[in-house]
This record gives sequence, C-alpha cells and structure tokens, in this order.
Amino acid sequence: MYLKTSISRASALAGGLALSAFAALPAWAQDAATEAAEGAAEAAPEFATVADTAFIFNTLLFLLGGFLVMWMAAGFAMLEAGMVRTKNVSMQLTKNIALYSIAGIMYWALGYGIMYTDVTGYFGTPGPYSWPTAGEANEGDYSVASDWFFQMVFVATAASIVSGTLAERMKLWPFLIFVVVLTGILYPITGAWTWGGGWLSEMGFSDFAGSTIVHSVGGWAALAGAILLGARIGKYGPNGQVIPIPGSNMALATLGTFILWLGWFGFNGASQLAMGSNADVSDISRIFANTNLAAAGGVVAALILTQVLYKKVDITMVLNGALAGLVSITAEPLQPGPLAAILIGAVGGVIVVFAVPLLDKLKIDDVVGAIPVHLIAGIWGTLVVPLSNAEASFATQIIGIVAMGLFSFVTAFIVFFILKVTIGLRASQEDEMKGLDLAEIGVEAYPEFSTGSR
Amino acid sequence: MYLKTSISRASALAGGLALSAFAALPAWAQDAATEAAEGAAEAAPEFATVADTAFIFNTLLFLLGGFLVMWMAAGFAMLEAGMVRTKNVSMQLTKNIALYSIAGIMYWALGYGIMYTDVTGYFGTPGPYSWPTAGEANEGDYSVASDWFFQMVFVATAASIVSGTLAERMKLWPFLIFVVVLTGILYPITGAWTWGGGWLSEMGFSDFAGSTIVHSVGGWAALAGAILLGARIGKYGPNGQVIPIPGSNMALATLGTFILWLGWFGFNGASQLAMGSNADVSDISRIFANTNLAAAGGVVAALILTQVLYKKVDITMVLNGALAGLVSITAEPLQPGPLAAILIGAVGGVIVVFAVPLLDKLKIDDVVGAIPVHLIAGIWGTLVVPLSNAEASFATQIIGIVAMGLFSFVTAFIVFFILKVTIGLRASQEDEMKGLDLAEIGVEAYPEFSTGSR
Amino acid sequence: MYLKTSISRASALAGGLALSAFAALPAWAQDAATEAAEGAAEAAPEFATVADTAFIFNTLLFLLGGFLVMWMAAGFAMLEAGMVRTKNVSMQLTKNIALYSIAGIMYWALGYGIMYTDVTGYFGTPGPYSWPTAGEANEGDYSVASDWFFQMVFVATAASIVSGTLAERMKLWPFLIFVVVLTGILYPITGAWTWGGGWLSEMGFSDFAGSTIVHSVGGWAALAGAILLGARIGKYGPNGQVIPIPGSNMALATLGTFILWLGWFGFNGASQLAMGSNADVSDISRIFANTNLAAAGGVVAALILTQVLYKKVDITMVLNGALAGLVSITAEPLQPGPLAAILIGAVGGVIVVFAVPLLDKLKIDDVVGAIPVHLIAGIWGTLVVPLSNAEASFATQIIGIVAMGLFSFVTAFIVFFILKVTIGLRASQEDEMKGLDLAEIGVEAYPEFSTGSR
Repeated sequence: MYLKTSISRASALAGGLALSAFAALPAWAQDAATEAAEGAAEAAPEFATVADTAFIFNTLLFLLGGFLVMWMAAGFAMLEAGMVRTKNVSMQLTKNIALYSIAGIMYWALGYGIMYTDVTGYFGTPGPYSWPTAGEANEGDYSVASDWFFQMVFVATAASIVSGTLAERMKLWPFLIFVVVLTGILYPITGAWTWGGGWLSEMGFSDFAGSTIVHSVGGWAALAGAILLGARIGKYGPNGQVIPIPGSNMALATLGTFILWLGWFGFNGASQLAMGSNADVSDISRIFANTNLAAAGGVVAALILTQVLYKKVDITMVLNGALAGLVSITAEPLQPGPLAAILIGAVGGVIVVFAVPLLDKLKIDDVVGAIPVHLIAGIWGTLVVPLSNAEASFATQIIGIVAMGLFSFVTAFIVFFILKVTIGLRASQEDEMKGLDLAEIGVEAYPEFSTGSR
Repeated sequence: MYLKTSISRASALAGGLALSAFAALPAWAQDAATEAAEGAAEAAPEFATVADTAFIFNTLLFLLGGFLVMWMAAGFAMLEAGMVRTKNVSMQLTKNIALYSIAGIMYWALGYGIMYTDVTGYFGTPGPYSWPTAGEANEGDYSVASDWFFQMVFVATAASIVSGTLAERMKLWPFLIFVVVLTGILYPITGAWTWGGGWLSEMGFSDFAGSTIVHSVGGWAALAGAILLGARIGKYGPNGQVIPIPGSNMALATLGTFILWLGWFGFNGASQLAMGSNADVSDISRIFANTNLAAAGGVVAALILTQVLYKKVDITMVLNGALAGLVSITAEPLQPGPLAAILIGAVGGVIVVFAVPLLDKLKIDDVVGAIPVHLIAGIWGTLVVPLSNAEASFATQIIGIVAMGLFSFVTAFIVFFILKVTIGLRASQEDEMKGLDLAEIGVEAYPEFSTGSR
Repeated sequence: MYLKTSISRASALAGGLALSAFAALPAWAQDAATEAAEGAAEAAPEFATVADTAFIFNTLLFLLGGFLVMWMAAGFAMLEAGMVRTKNVSMQLTKNIALYSIAGIMYWALGYGIMYTDVTGYFGTPGPYSWPTAGEANEGDYSVASDWFFQMVFVATAASIVSGTLAERMKLWPFLIFVVVLTGILYPITGAWTWGGGWLSEMGFSDFAGSTIVHSVGGWAALAGAILLGARIGKYGPNGQVIPIPGSNMALATLGTFILWLGWFGFNGASQLAMGSNADVSDISRIFANTNLAAAGGVVAALILTQVLYKKVDITMVLNGALAGLVSITAEPLQPGPLAAILIGAVGGVIVVFAVPLLDKLKIDDVVGAIPVHLIAGIWGTLVVPLSNAEASFATQIIGIVAMGLFSFVTAFIVFFILKVTIGLRASQEDEMKGLDLAEIGVEAYPEFSTGSR
C-alpha cells in the first residue's frame, strides 16, 4: 500500500509540473499518454521501498537483539546461582528474576524518559512511556516499542551485575529498592549523557555497546555496595588470609556463561541500531565475529595464565575470562580486526586473573568476580577504543570513564548508605549462617541434597 | 526474476492500450520512444516486490517464533524437573521430551488437518500433512511448512501443561497415550473452532495467542487427569492438612521459567502472523513489550503478596507469578497499553498466590501449579480482552471459555477414564514410594547425590 | 541510495540512446518531457533492489544460524557434564568452553583459508582470515564475516563430539592440543574436499549440512582417541562384563539435548545458505519441519525399543535417540517428505539402541555415546541421501564416507599417538580415581553435595 501511495504522489506531482505542456499536446496524444499510464499502473507489481524494508529490518534487529539480551538475565541468574553456596541459591535466583522484572517496570515508568526524551545535556523528562496505537505504521526508522524493549534489557543487565557481587549477605528488599533507583533514575541519567545525546555524547565519548555505560556503571554500583556491606562471614581470616568459599555448582556457572556469551551477540550486534542495508548488516557480521573472538581470547588467556601461575586451570577464572573478554570488546566491537579483537579480549582475561586476588587483598568481597569482569575490563575496553576508532580520543574516553564512574559510585553509595541507616542492608549474622534461603525465601534450592555448607 | 516478469506484463498491457495512439505517432517519434523504453529496461535493477519481501518476512517470523516456542519444551522440562522430587526427575524429563516428539508426529499425521483443512464449523479433514516440493516458490503469504512448524509447537505446549500437574504418580505409557489423543485429536478440534475458522471464530471469539485455546485447554486436561489420578501419597494428611512436598531443584525451576519467558516472545509475537509491513512489525514490537511487562507484573505481585501474607517471599510463587502474567496477556498482547499490560499480568500473579492453596483445599494435587497458571490465569486473560479490544464481547468470550472448557474437560476425562480402567493410570504404591525413575526408567537422575527423599 | 544510483544510471542510458530522437522533438514537447521526468524522479520513493534485500536476508540467515549453532556448544557442555560422574564435571565443562574458544581462534588463524581460499582439489591456502572494512558494503551475496562466523561454529561442533567420548580419563592439555590440530587443519582439509569445492564436491558427493563432513569426522576422531586411550578404570570387569557407570545429572543431559535440538534448526536450516527468495525461505521451512520430525522419530524409536528390549525406558537412549535422529537427517534435510524424515530419524534411534552395547562388547569406552550418535548415524544419514535426492549416487556417497573416514581416522590417530608418546594422553590412575576436577582443575563442580562416586 505504501508503494501505491507513492506512485500516486509521484503522478500528481509530475502531472502538476507537466500540466501546461500536456495541455499543449493534441487530444489524441493526451488520450494515448493517459491510457498508457493507467495500464502501466494497473499492471505494475507493488515494489518494496527502501524505507519500508529498512524499517522492518531495523525493528527486527531490535527484537532479535532484545530477546537475546533478555536471555542474559537467565545467564546472570545461572552464573550467580552456581557461584554461591547452596544455602543462598533460592535467594540469588529470586533476586535475579525480581530485578529483571523491576527493571522493566521502572524503565517504563521513569527511566526511558530520563534517558531519551528531550535530553538537555544532563537528563531528559521522566514519565511513563507509551507506544503508538496498535495496527498503525510508526514514523521513523524503527518501531518505537522495539527500541524501548531493546534499551530496557540493557538496564536490566546493569542491575544484574550488582546482584552477583553482593550475594550471600544482602537482604532481599533493600536490594530490590536499590534496583528501583538504579534502573529508574541512576542508569538513565548517565545513559542520557551518552546514548541519550547529552554532554558526553556531544564531546565525542565513544562506547559502542556499553563497556562503560552498562558494565562499568553496574560495576561501580557493585563496588559501592560491597564496601558498605562488608565481606561475608568467614571470607577473610583473623590474620588477613583469604579463605576460599567455593561456588556450589560449576555446571550452572558454565551454563550461565554460555548464555551470556550467546546473549552478547544481541548486546553488541544489535547496538549497530540498523540492519536495512548491505553495509549495516555487514557491520553486524563483523561485530558477531569480533565479539566471539574476544571472548575466545579471554578464555585462552585465563586458561594459560592460571595453568602457569597455579599449575591448575581454574574454571571460575576461565568463565570470568570469557565474560571479561566480552566486556572488553563491547566499547568497540566493530572497528578492530580479528587479531585485535582476540588481543583485546585476552587482556580482559589477564585482568580477571590478577584483579580477583587483588580485590581480596583489599578485603572487598565480590562473590562472583563482577568487579574485575564488568568494572575493570569495562574501563580497559573503553580506554582502548581510540586505537581502532579514529573518531575517539583518549582524553574524552578518560573524561567519560571518570565522570560516569564518579557519578555512579557516589550516587550508588548514597542510596546504599540511606538504606543501611534505615532498613539495613545486611542479613543478621544468624540468618547469614543458616543461609538466606531459609531466612528470607523459605524454600531451599536443593532440599534433598545433603550439603556440607559452612 | 519476479520484477522482470512484472515489467514485461506492464509493458505489454500499456502497449496494448496505447497501440492505436502509438501507431498515430510519426515514425521518428515511435523510434525514439522504443529506444528510450528499451534502454531504461536494460539498465533497471531488479526491484523487490512487496509480495516477495512480505513472504520472506512472514515466513521468517514463523521460523523465529517456532524455534522460540520449541525452546519452551525445554522450559517445561526444566521447570517440572525442578519441581518434582529427585526420585521422579528422570521420569519427568522423559515425559517431556517424549511428549514434544509425539506432538510433532501426531500433529503431522492427524492434527493439522483436523484444525485447518476445510474446516466445516467443528473440525476439518484429518490426515497426513505434506508441504510443497523443495526448491519451488510457495503460493500464499508464507511458506506452508513454516506455518505447520509454528502451529505444531503450540500443540506441544498444551501437552506440556498436562505433564506437570500429573507428575510423580502417573505411569509413563498411559501418559504418552493420552498425549497421542490430545495432540492428534482433542486440541485440533477446539483449535478448528477458533484459529481454524470454525464456529467460535465466526462468532467473534477473540484469543490472540491462546490463553484459552492453548493454555486453558491444557489446564482442563490436567484438571481431569488430576481428579481421576488422585493426590500423591503423603500430600494430604489424615486430618486434611496439606503437607508440602518441596521441589528438588529451584535452579532448574528458575531456568525453566526464564526459558518459558523467552519462548513467549515467539508465542505471542509471532501470533501476529505477519511481519512484512511497518504496521505489522510495529505491532509485534508492542506485543514483545507488553508480554514482558505482564510477566514483570506477575513477578512483582507475587513478590509483594507472598511477603505480606507469609512474611517470606516464596520463590515458587514468584516463578509461577511470571508464568501466570504471561498466560494472562496471551489472549490480547497487542491492544493494551503498557500500564494495562502490567496490571493484567499482576492479576495473574495474584491468582496464583490464592489459587494454589485453594486447589490444595480441594485436595487436587497439582505438582507444579499448572492449573492456576494455565487454566485460571488463562480464563482471566480471555475474559479481560474486551476491555482493550473493542471487537471482542464479554458474552462471546464467556461462550468460548465455557464451550472449550466443557469439551476439553469432558473428552480428556473420558480418555483418562478409559486408560484408568484398562491399563491403569497410576504407578503402584510401591513404585511411587521408591520413585518412578527406578520403577519405570531405570536411570536415576542424580545417582551420586545422597538424597533425603521421602 | 542504491535506488537513486540505479535510477540515474537508467536515465543516463535511456537519455543517451534516445538523444537524437529527443532532439528532433519540438521545443515545447522537450520541455514537457523534461519537466515530467524531473517531477517523477523527485517524488519517487527509493525502491529496494532484490540484490540488496537478498544480501541482508542471506547474511541474517548466517547470523541466526550461527548463534543457534554457537548455542550447541552449551548443549554439548551440558550433555557431557550430565553424563560424566561428579568428580569430572568441572573438567568436562572446562574442555567444552576451551574447545569452542580454540576452534574460533584456529579457524580464523588457519582453518577457513585451508577450507575455502583457492581450493585446488585437496586444500586451500592457510592463513589468518580478515573481513572487509567496517562501514562499507560487501560484495557478493552475503557478508564475508557472517559466512566465517557460520562456518566457524560448525568446526566447533566437530570438536565437541570428541570431548564427550574421551571424557573422565583424558588430560586437559593434550586434549586441547588435539583440538588445535583438528579445528585448524584436519577438519578444514576434509571440509575443502566437499564444501570448499574440492574433489569430492566435483564428484557429486552430497552432504547438505554435514552428517559426514561434521558429525562423522568428529566421530572418527573420537574413535581413534578412544582406542588409543583405553577404557575408564572399572568400566569393563575382569571377565569382560560391562559395568555401567551412570551419568551424574540427567537434568543437565536432557537440557543439553534440548539445546542441541534447538541449535540444529540453525545447523540444518541455515545450511540452505540463502533466504532472499520465496523458494529459499520455503526450503528453509521444509528443513525446519523435517529436522524436527527426524528428531521426534529418533525419540519414539528409542522409547519403544528400550521398553520392548529392557522392559524399562532408558532416558540416556532416548536422549541419544533424539540426537541420532538429528544427525541422520543432516545429510539431506530438504528433499525428504515428512514421513521419510520421521523414518530416517527413527532408524537413527534404532542405531543408538543397538550400537551402544555393541561398542561395549568391543571394549570401546564412549562415555556419552558420541560414536553411535555422530559417527554411525552420520554414515546412515549420508548413505540414505540418494533415496530422496536424485542428484546423489550411492557410489559417490560411499566414496565420500570412506575417503573422509580414512583420512579423519588415520590423521587423528597419528596426532593422538604423537601426543601419547610425548606428553601422554591419559591421567594417572591416581588422578582418574580421585577425579580430574581435583587433579587438574582444582575446583569441584558440586563441592557441597556429598557424593557416592566410585
């Protein structure tokens, strides 16, 4: 139907312009021309316009990318359920499905508006979002609701990062309240600075799919929470020694990592934001290949490094190596060549192997290793963008990293602090010892498996 | 090649019409016109027709939606494996992969024909289905086989609902025989009344993606089976008290829920049945966003309600809240705005929290909570359609719910009854006590994990 | 933009041809024609060319198929983690994520070139691969990087097959070195003979999605390794009796099977290699439907057969029945009708039920049953192609099966043998007894679940 409209518009215009000339033709010629035009119009197939097909392809890209990133919520849930002890598994699962749900509602109620509606440098206009009437064509290059869906799953990712670090000791409800603030207000504000077109965007800050905008922002909030919350009971011995607390289920942790890896194709690939041309879909293909190679680089680096350092391969480092590789390439998955992608990811894997024990030295208890993976590798990925993308500068990248880091850390710290002095962040010592599942959820994760929990 | 054909048809027609006029032109003008037309035709690129691109997009929608809904079979398998005791896990897994396989074969052999081929009000023509020759273009708006695939995964969903309710006590083979009848005959008949264009469809019954047609139909069959089968040994005490039988693996149950949530984007989104225009893909986007918000509403409602009622958050209610939210929005995922979607889903979550203990009062033992989630929330979702969709009426919705409910319940009851008096439905008391895995499968699910099973 | 270019090219050409005639028109007619043409050009929408939309659809097919097949890596990981004992689960998970990563890097560094670049009958030109510049349209029918991505996930599949057979006794590093050789050199060579356009391809060998090229090649390598490695301690008793060693987690094994089933839609469907026309997307739809029916046939055959033979349904046979059905249809998923697809898959299921005990009689210890599923069913699927595809001949199919089998078995045997006499293939008896997780990984998979491992 679009084509028919276009044809009649074209005829009308052409007709208008040529009218005087047409009138000057002899009558038989006028008749002939009219008849010919009508015949042609009737017989012509409707052709698809570039605008229409691009609209469909772009929207489809958001839907595909959106469901892949939504699936990452399951990935975080499985990864974290595998990395905590059995007595806290139901809690961790509950936190993850709850945070994904809250993120959706808050990003609808407030967040999308703050991030994208009439952004004036620092933030936009909060308020419930809505999408055009059903059954009607949307204006623009893609459907409004597909864009909302795709943006929404990103904010959920940032919240997922926080839950892992703070596992096994943070109470459910203060955590969920923090998620309300993070997904409804904090993330959308820094999002407005960048993807919303605000001041950092105008300055030229470059973060293709969110090494900083998503991953470091989540990582800074996790760090603020970890400092205020303190370490789990028994994590650090009286003489400062680090006591390993093994995760309860490596199969789930591995499954979670594979899910995240899969979802990352949507995360990075659909951040191209367009699929309606040869060049766009070719760029998406580069992004898929680079994203995969960076994760592979992270895995191989962690494999070799833990073998060399510890004489055994540590599977938790290998899994986090994959994720750090993915975070590292996220700021610029398009421009690097394959070798550069492998190396960028491999450095992510190296970061994990060294940063995990470093955090332990600082007595920052990060249950799943989210701070090395998302915060530190996120900084690395953002810093390295100018090496492959000539439009980015180191100065601007550093300004962006610092500004977003300061804002995210400070505001998250304030919110956690208010929660701490009001309803409290941390489960009682007794609840922590018996496990949060019995204390707050009332449903054990594995009631029949006799366990050797601490 | 389509374009070239069209161009020549157009030229031919136009030529015919204008022939006399053309003939009246002077020779030099005839030559000029001919040369110009030939040059243009030679240089023109082949343009894609709306019909062809829409065909590809529509078919792609069925394939994408189809594989997402196929993935729901894994979701039901994991959910149910997590909600039963360890001694019945292998059985539950076997039932799930078997029912999905049987559904495919039966819907090919009989079901699709009954549901869609020459439907005369009540049913169509059973018989093996086939698809057009390989390598050739199909007629119509989408490929025949993609439509079959998409419809097939829906019937498997209905069968999955039944397996969860009847877990831990129903023998394997009678269950599989029931699945043969359900997927080959029963579901296709009510499907013919509605999506097949039969009497309920003509009356204006509105059920976009199947709150009633899929979920309630499965739920009614589950209810019939649960009544005939009776409760598990030990579920209800001698004085009528309800004895909780905890599921063995909350991580699997949560994984299953996330898988179902993901698959539901295909379930509801691809039920738009077309993706070849701006309006269609925009509608699909609305459906994705609404579907997600309804699930989120169900989660948040169950979170808050169980906290208020029981002072603890019950993760099994939260998971079922998500699913009930999804079932609730399935009858009309397109028309509601975002707030309405959240509320429709939230009511689903509330239904679960109240209906699960209600069923226990009635001594109907529904192992996974499928009756509240699929049957009751399915009725709710179907009833609420007229509030957002002006073309639906409460009267017709109620007629549809009652007619399909009566038919599904009664026929399922008869089939189960025949099985009961012939080969028997229920495992022996001894087999139930030692677990169906050892009794009928011969492979324990977790042979190395010492268990505390009842 | 493509359209505008085309229009101007067309106008230019037409203009050139008709110039003399145009010049002969009276001035007023020249003006009228010019004005009309300009008006039409201005108002005309840009139409999408068949070449551009097909490019996007084809590339999208590779990306969709690619991420689905990538997901199969998680499927193998879960299947194998479920089929080994708890003491070897972390090792099996590590091997799987490592092999997928190594496959990506090696297929980039060497493999793709050997398989596809200037193949001269037997192999092409090894060397690091690269893709066109970002931001530019690619030449050809699909994006270069999407093709690489899709081919890469296939080589990872072949490597995954090997890891399952050799589980529970092979050391990590020799396994990974074997993967380097398999994915960088061996698989690409036989790949060059066939999909790369080499001698078997020229002879007419027909293997649509790789029953032989991927699955049997992996299976032959697994067989070579199993022979050199020997059986696990305790698998075969002193009097030759077979001692079952149950897998530790049937839920994970089933999850893995469902993941593989899902991924197979990408494996077979995207092997159509084109989605830009009605005929191509209709063929993909046939492939989806046939692939699903073949898996269903394998499941039902294994269900019935194990019930009849053993009076119990063996879930491990049912899962392998599904996979054998999938492997069987992979050589020709397009041409068979639905009934043929079911039967081809069912024979795969039968093969599994008989071949698993047969291998045990030969004292070939295949932990997950990969040799029956991938090697033997792969041969069956390749042999049966000529029954539905008139372009294939039995003679050529047999030549291909034998040639690729000989090459794969012999070269894999040599590589394993060199590893055996240098760094050794097999863990020490002590390490095997305590489990490879503690010996080489240092992280138990389920540290809190008290286990009854042998």
